Formats: sequence, C-alpha cells, structure tokens
Amino acid sequence: MSKSVSHTDLINRSAADVRAAIRTGAYTGQTSGLAAGKLQCNLAILPERFALDFLRFCQRNAKPCPVVGVGDTGNPYLPTLGHDIDIRRDVPKYRVFRDGVLTDETTDITELWTDDLVTVALGCSFTFENALQRNGIPVRHVEMGRNVPMYRSNLALVPAGPFAGEMVVTMRPIPENKIAAAYAISGKYPQAHGAPIAVGDPGDIGIADLAQPDWGEPVDIRPGEVPVYWACGVTPQNVLLDAKLPLCITHTPGHMLIADVAEDAETTVLNTK
Amino acid sequence: MSKSVSHTDLINRSAADVRAAIRTGAYTGQTSGLAAGKLQCNLAILPERFALDFLRFCQRNAKPCPVVGVGDTGNPYLPTLGHDIDIRRDVPKYRVFRDGVLTDETTDITELWTDDLVTVALGCSFTFENALQRNGIPVRHVEMGRNVPMYRSNLALVPAGPFAGEMVVTMRPIPENKIAAAYAISGKYPQAHGAPIAVGDPGDIGIADLAQPDWGEPVDIRPGEVPVYWACGVTPQNVLLDAKLPLCITHTPGHMLIADVAEDAETTVLNTK
Repeated sequence: MSKSVSHTDLINRSAADVRAAIRTGAYTGQTSGLAAGKLQCNLAILPERFALDFLRFCQRNAKPCPVVGVGDTGNPYLPTLGHDIDIRRDVPKYRVFRDGVLTDETTDITELWTDDLVTVALGCSFTFENALQRNGIPVRHVEMGRNVPMYRSNLALVPAGPFAGEMVVTMRPIPENKIAAAYAISGKYPQAHGAPIAVGDPGDIGIADLAQPDWGEPVDIRPGEVPVYWACGVTPQNVLLDAKLPLCITHTPGHMLIADVAEDAETTVLNTK
Repeated sequence: MSKSVSHTDLINRSAADVRAAIRTGAYTGQTSGLAAGKLQCNLAILPERFALDFLRFCQRNAKPCPVVGVGDTGNPYLPTLGHDIDIRRDVPKYRVFRDGVLTDETTDITELWTDDLVTVALGCSFTFENALQRNGIPVRHVEMGRNVPMYRSNLALVPAGPFAGEMVVTMRPIPENKIAAAYAISGKYPQAHGAPIAVGDPGDIGIADLAQPDWGEPVDIRPGEVPVYWACGVTPQNVLLDAKLPLCITHTPGHMLIADVAEDAETTVLNTK
C-alpha cells in the first residue's frame, strides 16, 4: 500500500487520478465531491446466471435502478465508463454478501473475482444533488454534513425473476416555491433517479416517521419546506440481498465508482456521440 | 379473421382498440399516426441464451437501441408496456429470420412461440418526429409521403458478445435556423433515439450519396436546409441478422407494437411514478 491521501488532497484531481489513488490503496474513503462533474456509480456484481433477470429488473424499475454500465461476463474492465477501470480495485470499499448475509468489507476484490461474474453499474443521487445546488436549491443533508435520510416505502417494485420488493426513497426538504424547479432539474438526469417519485405526506408512501429513517440520518424540515422523495440507489442493493444470491458484491454506501463519463452526458457511454 | 379495417378507421382509436384490431387480423398495416401520443416500439424476439448479450449491446449503444421493455423468458405478455399485450399476435406484421436469413413474414407468431424466447421492445423515431412536427419543425419524408431515408454509417457500435457493427442512421433535412431546436426537442426523448448524432456533410459519417439511401426513399433537401442524422432503429435489426441467430423475430418496418405508455412518460413502465 502506498502513502495514504486524504479527501482534501483529491478534491481537485481528475477521475483517473482519484481512481489511481484508490487502486493503490492510498485512498479508501467516501467519494462525495470528488472528480466534480463526473458520473459516480452504485455497484452490483453478481454471478452471470442472475444477470439477465437483474437487468430486466432494472429496466422495469429504472428510477431506483438506472443502469449506466454493464461489464462482459468475467471481464473486470468497464471501457464504456472510463479508461482502464478495473472494477476489482477501483472502488474505495466493497461489501461482500453470501446468501444475503454481509460476510466481508474490503478495499480490493481481486481474489474474489471469477470468470462467472458480471458487473452492473447504476446511477447515483450525487449527480442530481450537484445540479440542484448549482441551481440554488438547498440540499439539507449536505448543508448539515449528514448522510441523506433513506426510508422503506410501500411503493411496489415490478418483479423480475428472484428480484422484487418495495422502493427505498430518499427525502430532501425543498422550499415550496422551488419544488417545481427541483422536479425540472432532477428530471433532466434519468441516469440518476430522475424527477421525484412523491411529494408531501410521508404516510402516502408508507413512511411512518420522517425523524426515524431506515438508513442515513434525519434532517431538519424548516417552515415553508415540503418533504420531497426520490427513488434511491439502496433499492437494488436491498433487492439483491433479499434474493439471497450465493455471492453478490456491492460498493460500501458513499464509496462509489467514479467514471470518466460526464454526469450531464446524453448517454453514459464514453465517446458516444 | 374478422372483417378488415383501414388505417383511416383506426385513426382516432385507442392503443387497446388498435391492438384488438391487429390481434384479430382485421388490421395488418403500418402503424404510423395511430394511437397518437402512445409509444410505438421496434421489436426483437430472440432465444434466452442471447438475451443477456443483447441487453448489454443495447445498453452500450443506447441511442440506436433504446430498450423500452423486456419480457420474461417464455412469457409473451408485456405488462410494463400495456394491458394485455400478447406479443405473439399484437403486432401487424412480423419477420422471421433463421441463421440470419429472412424465412417468413407473418401476422401471427403463436405457432413459433416457445418457452425459450425473450421479447425486447425498443423505442422508435415516430416519437420524436411527432414532437418535431408539434413544434413547427418540418419532417420532410412525412410531407412527401415517403419512408424515411436510412443509411449505413461508419460509426462503430460498441460490441457485446456476438453483436457488433456500424450504426444505421436516418436523415431529415432541417432549416438551418431550426437545427438547435431540433436537437433540444428530440433530445428530450432518450427512449426514442434522443438528439441527432451528426449534422452536415454525409461524408463525415461515411455516407457516399444522400440520394441513394440503403433503406427507405430519398427526400428533397431545400435551400437553407442542412441534413441532420439520427440513430436509427434498423441498427439492432441489422446487428441481429449479422449475428446469424438460429431464430430471431422482428416487426416488419413501420408495423410497430403500440404500447399504452405515453410517448412523453418519464419511464416506459406503465403506472410507474
């Protein structure tokens, strides 16, 4: 392992530089705010025999599960997402699940890689959060230095093979006069969950108490603000765990794959016109 | 077969009504202009063992191959695209290819259906053409009552498994002062090829002569107009044929699957918020 570097050291470096620091083990932290303007990705690695159903599941549930890249079976490189991306080493931290149980957290999955594995990269909310902020719409959990609050909803997913369940959603309080803008801005990023899936009363989508998120931390809702809900990238992770695959590898939340693709590109394929 | 109906008889009918006329065999014609506002789809039906690679291919080449629906293996129904869609009977005309050779054209594939087949529905250019026309941008081949001119380009596709080749493009002449609007309007429909892939000199993308399209018919380019090129849904058909699958079924050009999904819906999954 090379000399370790901090998040601050990497803040203005390119996606390739950040991945290089991750690959050597010099950086194993969260990727929020790194390689600004580049697409960051949720990760699901699974045995090939489940990959067709998983892609069908993602197509049918594109808001929580926007597919932005798919590797060839057994091939750890992802050339459509970036130059020289080796998915075995270029994510800061991975979670390894066996039969639906977390068995390991690691910074390198080279020894777990087999000819049978397929990588699926999925869009993540960093993309539209950056766009909201650029457009003067507050993102409360960022302001408060917290993880976004995430909730199990009662919104049924469209099943495919062993994959099914309910959607996980994130909540961001938005000033009432900026809700329309929040819809319009995030709606431009279908590769990153797109427009909100609900607004207002949490009970309408099966959430009992906004102060008690299922993941992440609660945030303040100020006078004049309304809770707005977006589809969340934890959804596919949850669904994968429930399916109890013999092996499944994901990123550790917040520790994303950083692509060379621009987050506002029309497609998530490098160099595609 | 019931009493036949004409395109005119169906012009103001719902998608369900049009599919019902198709299912009974009363209508076997082109679907352009029918069920206005509903998504129309290109069709690829193939054996399951090729489906994962085909979906990878479509993900990597999303502009020519925008996936809008995928059936379960062996299941001829497509509930995410519409109520009671039976893909064996609800398309006006099908083409059957064996080992890359056209062996049959038929209005019903019930006898060919097996437990091994997977249906992939892909977006089609009717969607953005309707939007261009609504916004006052001329669509020449429609004005001239012709099929859109289609050309083999030299734009390489990103391969996946047995699927590879070059992009097929359509050309529409656009007045120079409306090109930016044409990009903006069609760019709103990523499920239907999105924004153009090139503009101007056909030689830049390997087209020798616009007057001699590889499919469809040439159209007039008037003074002040510039040729604009979009990714074309013939691309996946071509690629499927080149892969010489033992069996592959497509729609006959212009004879599309009509979904219940609105063509401007955020996702192509029915009732998804």
